[in-house]
Amino acid sequence: MPIDLNCDLGESSEPNQLESDARLLDSVSSVNIACGFHAGGPELMRHTVRLAKEKGVAVGAHPGFRDPEGLGRRAMVMPPGELEDLVAYQVGALAGIAALEGTWLSHVKPHGALYNLAAQSSEVAEAVARAVAAIDSQLVLVGLAGSQLIAAARTMGLTGAQEAFADRAYHPDGTLVGRERQGAVIDDEGEVVTRALSIAREGHVLSWDGQRIQVHADTICVHGDTPGADRLARSIKQALLDAGIRIVALGTSHA
Amino acid sequence: MPIDLNCDLGESSEPNQLESDARLLDSVSSVNIACGFHAGGPELMRHTVRLAKEKGVAVGAHPGFRDPEGLGRRAMVMPPGELEDLVAYQVGALAGIAALEGTWLSHVKPHGALYNLAAQSSEVAEAVARAVAAIDSQLVLVGLAGSQLIAAARTMGLTGAQEAFADRAYHPDGTLVGRERQGAVIDDEGEVVTRALSIAREGHVLSWDGQRIQVHADTICVHGDTPGADRLARSIKQALLDAGIRIVALGTSHA
Amino acid sequence: MPIDLNCDLGESSEPNQLESDARLLDSVSSVNIACGFHAGGPELMRHTVRLAKEKGVAVGAHPGFRDPEGLGRRAMVMPPGELEDLVAYQVGALAGIAALEGTWLSHVKPHGALYNLAAQSSEVAEAVARAVAAIDSQLVLVGLAGSQLIAAARTMGLTGAQEAFADRAYHPDGTLVGRERQGAVIDDEGEVVTRALSIAREGHVLSWDGQRIQVHADTICVHGDTPGADRLARSIKQALLDAGIRIVALGTSHA
Amino acid sequence: MPIDLNCDLGESSEPNQLESDARLLDSVSSVNIACGFHAGGPELMRHTVRLAKEKGVAVGAHPGFRDPEGLGRRAMVMPPGELEDLVAYQVGALAGIAALEGTWLSHVKPHGALYNLAAQSSEVAEAVARAVAAIDSQLVLVGLAGSQLIAAARTMGLTGAQEAFADRAYHPDGTLVGRERQGAVIDDEGEVVTRALSIAREGHVLSWDGQRIQVHADTICVHGDTPGADRLARSIKQALLDAGIRIVALGTSHA
Repeated sequence: MPIDLNCDLGESSEPNQLESDARLLDSVSSVNIACGFHAGGPELMRHTVRLAKEKGVAVGAHPGFRDPEGLGRRAMVMPPGELEDLVAYQVGALAGIAALEGTWLSHVKPHGALYNLAAQSSEVAEAVARAVAAIDSQLVLVGLAGSQLIAAARTMGLTGAQEAFADRAYHPDGTLVGRERQGAVIDDEGEVVTRALSIAREGHVLSWDGQRIQVHADTICVHGDTPGADRLARSIKQALLDAGIRIVALGTSHA
Repeated sequence: MPIDLNCDLGESSEPNQLESDARLLDSVSSVNIACGFHAGGPELMRHTVRLAKEKGVAVGAHPGFRDPEGLGRRAMVMPPGELEDLVAYQVGALAGIAALEGTWLSHVKPHGALYNLAAQSSEVAEAVARAVAAIDSQLVLVGLAGSQLIAAARTMGLTGAQEAFADRAYHPDGTLVGRERQGAVIDDEGEVVTRALSIAREGHVLSWDGQRIQVHADTICVHGDTPGADRLARSIKQALLDAGIRIVALGTSHA
Repeated sequence: MPIDLNCDLGESSEPNQLESDARLLDSVSSVNIACGFHAGGPELMRHTVRLAKEKGVAVGAHPGFRDPEGLGRRAMVMPPGELEDLVAYQVGALAGIAALEGTWLSHVKPHGALYNLAAQSSEVAEAVARAVAAIDSQLVLVGLAGSQLIAAARTMGLTGAQEAFADRAYHPDGTLVGRERQGAVIDDEGEVVTRALSIAREGHVLSWDGQRIQVHADTICVHGDTPGADRLARSIKQALLDAGIRIVALGTSHA
Repeated sequence: MPIDLNCDLGESSEPNQLESDARLLDSVSSVNIACGFHAGGPELMRHTVRLAKEKGVAVGAHPGFRDPEGLGRRAMVMPPGELEDLVAYQVGALAGIAALEGTWLSHVKPHGALYNLAAQSSEVAEAVARAVAAIDSQLVLVGLAGSQLIAAARTMGLTGAQEAFADRAYHPDGTLVGRERQGAVIDDEGEVVTRALSIAREGHVLSWDGQRIQVHADTICVHGDTPGADRLARSIKQALLDAGIRIVALGTSHA
């Protein structure tokens, strides 16, 4: 079974981060680009699209709440119709930028608080999926494995891509341990690589209390905003390749 | 010769303005919707798209500089590549919103300082036209009659729509008298209607110093942000119809 | 007992709204100015401050969530520390603008969803009050009569001003009927004036089901964003004056 | 003669940049904090203020054009009154945030395109200085050594602090070589340290073509947005201390 490696980029135009972003694009197969609401803007979006295209990485939209201060991590209370507007605006905007580079979007992955809400609430999930389907029914919709967003994608006739996290602790029920809890983010490179391999090859991962839980993953998320993110991504990629697992971009093998 | 009547909407969600906007849509054939940079936002864009669609009015994007305080009337100094980004982001965003309502854009008209720069500078005009053409070569590009933007539209293989203003004073060379000059905006309803008729029927208008100048207009702009705008629009429409001039939306007769 | 008449301004720079805003300043004694997050911006803030100063109207800050699309009516989920930041940033920004006009702020009134949250949640109320007290302990803090925000003002050593609404329906427990409910907003001018008089003179108002409820009001809110708002404000002011009630700005008689 | 070391911070909340920012605060004596228009926001501003206060670093405002995409490097064409609004809003906002941490601002330094315009144009410089003086006449105004902004500070009765750049090439007339020119930014650590020493101790620096030019500097700028910025800042600080030069924050020795 092939797998995709995705990461979130285009959240900062500081030179340090731009360099790290460019190196990450050597390891991932899909990239989720911030669309100007929680981070990013027209120029940074185009810069990232161009780089991704050059490196053969699939380009996706990463819409979030209008919350630049909170980097999209704070929930906003909005009715479903306005959630559709939020997503359609941002996906459309990135599609416009992609057109400048002669390319098109392969996928959409909600960001931050919107990702979490779309995992838990079928109402939010369906609003997101409805907006994506209205723009282009060929877009792959990325969500937490086993979540409401994956179900909503199916309901709306979209291909859902189930996402797993090699560097995040899981509860036994397959949900993520909240970032505010100690141990929620796994720092040790060796352990992260081991977990990525276990997810990709065997479809399971250990929960924080040592239980073996099933995780069906079409894509593994690599975080781009931590020190050493590019090195970690390279290690995961290499370990997957060494194990004979093909790395294939979203929208390619998931059709 | 048919003509289009266009107006700029979706710049304010104050109830007073929303009511005026709705009435204006009964008189115009095309509407230019603010895309969130100088004014507007996802919800107001969708509201305006829905209303326009219901009333059979052609929907167009009205991209401007990121300048909510100055309502897009202040120029920003940007290289051509960044102007492309600015336009593509906003046109794409409105296209995304339009998709939610099952519709598509017919035209693009730059706003405020971007409109003026694109009229005068071939570099700016070409950046705008390039962005529009990259998104969809069927989009009509609206610009000041006889301006650089109309020339750039042709260069890029787009249909340009030449715009004239019935309520603005003209210099003898066909450029507009700046708003900061007295008499730049014509308030008298009768005079505005007379000028609209003269433009649509005879292709000329009087300059501020009484010279008869040629203005080839595919579309006449009706301002939406002044008291009584909706009544004035209705008067212009009626006068044109009474004179036997057909009013046809952009993208229809201009193909 | 004197009373204050307040209204929210500076939410739109459309010419129609600006004219209505200027007329409203002839009737109210205090004005709450949007600070750029849910509406407004530096220029509109200064314009409104200047006008208020000319007319002797007390200037206050009207901080809201960063939500220009939703006009600040959508709640954002933020920890108390970030709510402090949100309020302090906006109050400070308006104080900076006021300094340009040689004036200072008399009060702060949270806007929209922040107003409602601060009425109900002591945690939100205390965060708002803490930010205001840190900037200037002489600032009057305006909140719904009898709400958590009034209690928090006292806890933080601020003067709280209790606000009542003559054009909104009340539940028997003194909370407002939500805008989404029919009859929540009272349109009839005569009835609104009667309710204002009853609040100011007798300290009570009828709930939607006809019960007489106590409302201690230091200030009555006049809405500025509805058609005819300026005429309604004038009628309320005249009725209060005719009844021998003095209209006194916030920060004057409330010390 | 003592000197100040300043740097621009609070432009990104990416973890990589936050760590670099924290280390920079160990070397500089004054910090200029982005105020939410070209970068930053309420939370990041507070975070940076708190850190600066803990480390005894003077806190200043770094107002820029509303241009998050261009990081404030693109000029906006605005009349003087609107420039005053722009500066007063941002300085006031940071003062509000500083109040939450029980501190106050010591200085203001315009950012990016606003810095450059205020160096060259007396009209822009006076608008900036007027806004700063209206808020607090004790604020030190930082500008390019010998520029219009230093002259305007004096005119408005403010203390001006003349700034020099150890890592930027100079023209023989004391203006900076534009960043778009090759060699405009000096990368070599040893050379930057040598130039800092020469500026602080002898009051001169070599222009790009080898001429010795006078630069009277009250403060030297250390860039914070380049890889290794924190190490470079430490080297400059150490070299100055080794040469017996005292490093003193803005607003301390400049009274």
